[in-house]
Amino acid sequence: MREVAILGIGQTKIEEHWDRSLKDLAGEAVLNALKDGGIPGAEAIFVGNMMSGLANNQQHLGAAIADWCGLRFSDAVHIEAACSSGAAAFRSALMAVASGEIDVALAAGVEKMPDVPGEEITSYLATAADADYEVDMGLSFVALNALVMRRYMHEYGWKKDDFAPFSINAHANGAHNPYARFQDPITLADYQRAGMICEPINLMDASGIGDGAAAVVLVPAEMARQRGLPVIKVVGSGAATDSIAVHNRFEPLWLKAAELSSKQAYAQAGIGPGDIDIFEAHDAFSIMAALSLEGSGFAEKGQAPRLALDGEILPTGRIPIATRGGLKARGHPVGATGMYQIVEVVQQLRGEATGTQVENARTGMAQNIGGSGSNIITHIFRRE
Amino acid sequence: MREVAILGIGQTKIEEHWDRSLKDLAGEAVLNALKDGGIPGAEAIFVGNMMSGLANNQQHLGAAIADWCGLRFSDAVHIEAACSSGAAAFRSALMAVASGEIDVALAAGVEKMPDVPGEEITSYLATAADADYEVDMGLSFVALNALVMRRYMHEYGWKKDDFAPFSINAHANGAHNPYARFQDPITLADYQRAGMICEPINLMDASGIGDGAAAVVLVPAEMARQRGLPVIKVVGSGAATDSIAVHNRFEPLWLKAAELSSKQAYAQAGIGPGDIDIFEAHDAFSIMAALSLEGSGFAEKGQAPRLALDGEILPTGRIPIATRGGLKARGHPVGATGMYQIVEVVQQLRGEATGTQVENARTGMAQNIGGSGSNIITHIFRRE
Repeated sequence: MREVAILGIGQTKIEEHWDRSLKDLAGEAVLNALKDGGIPGAEAIFVGNMMSGLANNQQHLGAAIADWCGLRFSDAVHIEAACSSGAAAFRSALMAVASGEIDVALAAGVEKMPDVPGEEITSYLATAADADYEVDMGLSFVALNALVMRRYMHEYGWKKDDFAPFSINAHANGAHNPYARFQDPITLADYQRAGMICEPINLMDASGIGDGAAAVVLVPAEMARQRGLPVIKVVGSGAATDSIAVHNRFEPLWLKAAELSSKQAYAQAGIGPGDIDIFEAHDAFSIMAALSLEGSGFAEKGQAPRLALDGEILPTGRIPIATRGGLKARGHPVGATGMYQIVEVVQQLRGEATGTQVENARTGMAQNIGGSGSNIITHIFRRE
Repeated sequence: MREVAILGIGQTKIEEHWDRSLKDLAGEAVLNALKDGGIPGAEAIFVGNMMSGLANNQQHLGAAIADWCGLRFSDAVHIEAACSSGAAAFRSALMAVASGEIDVALAAGVEKMPDVPGEEITSYLATAADADYEVDMGLSFVALNALVMRRYMHEYGWKKDDFAPFSINAHANGAHNPYARFQDPITLADYQRAGMICEPINLMDASGIGDGAAAVVLVPAEMARQRGLPVIKVVGSGAATDSIAVHNRFEPLWLKAAELSSKQAYAQAGIGPGDIDIFEAHDAFSIMAALSLEGSGFAEKGQAPRLALDGEILPTGRIPIATRGGLKARGHPVGATGMYQIVEVVQQLRGEATGTQVENARTGMAQNIGGSGSNIITHIFRRE
C-alpha cells in the first residue's frame, strides 16, 4: 500500500443555509480544499451523505457534485453509513489512493437537513436504526441514546451533572471556531436548566443538526512532500460494525465497534491510545462521547465521566476532545460530520487551530459513529 | 496493486418478493456467494443500493446487512450511484482488496422496489436525475430516455422497429435464466403491439423493475489459484461521470462517460473492444443499449441498431449482449443490477451459462449506467 497524505482541507460554516443548495455547500468545501492544497482538480470524488434522497430529492450525489465542482468526467460515488458517512467516504478515498488506482482523490461530506419539518427529520434520522425491530417500536435516536445513558448511570453510579463537562468543553472550544454553528460558551447553570428532550438527555447533551460540508484532498505522501507543505499522513484506518439494533448487542454499554476499529487503526500506526495528542470523538450525545473514549482505550469501562470531570478532555488536558466544538457546538450535519472531524484534526496537526490549539499536537485521531454505534470508523493522522 | 479475482457468486430470482425483506434478499445472495466460493465469511462488505431510504425506511445498509449475514463486526458500507450502485460497490470492494487493506471482500447489490405505488417509484427513481433542473420540470427517466431516442432516430434515420432486436434478444436469452423475472421469448409482433409508455419508448423498450440481490466474493488472485477453482480475474476497472442533466451534455447522443470508463478499463487490461467475447450492457431502455455499444467502441456513432439487426448481439454473434436476459428480461432492481451483470459475466467465463453459453468465452465486460449516462462504470474480467 502507498502512504497517503492530506494535501488540502475545506469547510463551510454550519448553520441553516436556507438560501443555498446541497451542491452549492459541497462545492464551497471542495473548491476550498482544492485551493488549500494548491491543486486544480481531482481524478475522483467520494461523497459522504446520509439523507439527500429523503430531504433533498437528490441521490446520485457523486455525479451531481462532481459536475457542480467542475470535475465533470471524474470518477464519483456517494457513500452512506448513516452518521459515519463522512469517514466512510474518506476511507474509500484512502483505499483508492493507497491501491494506486487513483492519485488525487477528494473526500467530501455534505448534508442539508433543516428544510423539512422537525418530525420528518427525526424519521429520516431513524432510517439509520433498525427499521424492522427498532423504528417500528417508535424508537427515535434520542430515545435509544436516552435508554443507554440511563442504564450507564445506573450501572456505574454517575449523576446527570457528571456529564456537563462534555457539553461545557465543546461549547468553550466552539466559541473559537468560525465554522461552528454555536459560538457561545455555556456554564454549568446553563446545562442544568436546559430543557429535557428525553430523560436523561437534555438539550445540552444533544448535538444540533445543521447544513454544512467539509472536504479534503488525498494524495500519495510523496506528492505532498514534493510540494513543501506540512505533510499530514494517514497512518491508521479501521472500520467495524456491530448489530444495528441496540438490544441485540452483546454488551449495550460497550462500543465493540469502537474497540475493534480503534485497535485496527492503532495497529496500523504502531501506537496506542497514550500516543494520541488530540481525539475528535463523536459526541452526538454526551453518552456517546463517554462510550467512544472508553471503547478507544482512553478510559476504563464506565469511567469516562471521571476524565471529563478532571479536565482531561480540555485542550490542555491529557486527551483533548471536541477541540473545535465537536458535534455539540460545531454542529452535526450528519453525513458531513466525519469529514469535519478530519478537517479539524488536520488543523490541529498543522498548528492552525486558533484559540484552541493543542500544544505540540503531532498525532491526532478522529472517530465517526453511525447509528447507535453500529458502524464506527477510526482514523489516525500524523504530522511528518 | 494486487491482482484480484472473483471467488464466488450468488443471486436471487428477480420478482415481486412481497413476503421477503431487503435484508433477507441480500442475505440469500451473500450466503450463496460465500458458499459458492467455499469460504465462511468476509472482512468487509460493500453494499450497492439506490433507494432503501425512500422505499424501505432503511438506510445504513452496510451494518444492517452485515449483521443479518452473520458478518457482525466486519467493515461495511453502502455505496450509491443511482442505477450504477452495484458496479460502484464492486469497484470499491476491488480497490479495498487491491490496496491490501482487505483480503476477503463481499460486494453485493440489493433493491426492493415494488412495495410502494407506481407513481412513488417513479419519483424515487427521479432522485437520480438533476433535482433542480430536470425533475422540477416534470421529467421522469422514461421521458428523458424518450427525448434521447427520438433525437437519435431523427439524426441517424432509424425507425422504431429497428430497435426490436434488442428486446427480442434479451427475452430469448432470459428464457434460459432461472433467475430472470421474465422468462418468455417475444416476437417482432409482440414488440410492435406493446403499449406505448412515452413515445417512442414502448413497454418492450423498457426494462422492468423488481426485487432482487446479487453478490460476489473478491480475493487476491493468488488465493483463488490456491483453491483450484476457475480463476476469474478482474483485469480492468474504469469509472467516469458526465453532467447529471442531459441538456448540459456536450453531445446528448454520445455517452462520454461510457467512452472514458471503457477506455480506462481497456487500457488496464491491455486490450480493445475486439477482444471482448461477451458484453453485459446496461439495456434499461433499448436506446441505452445502443448508446452503450457505441460509447464502448463496438459500433460507430449512430450505428448500433445495425449491429442488432445483423444478429451480432446474439449469443452466436460478434458481441453478444444481455446473455442472461439483460435488464430487459432478467429485470432491473436498480441498485442490484450492476452486481447481476458481473455475476452473469462470471457465469459465462466459467462456462455455466446454461442455454445461452457463448462458445470459448474467455474475456467478458460489464457496464453499469447511473442516471441517463451520468455515471458509467465498466469492468473487464478474464478467465485465467
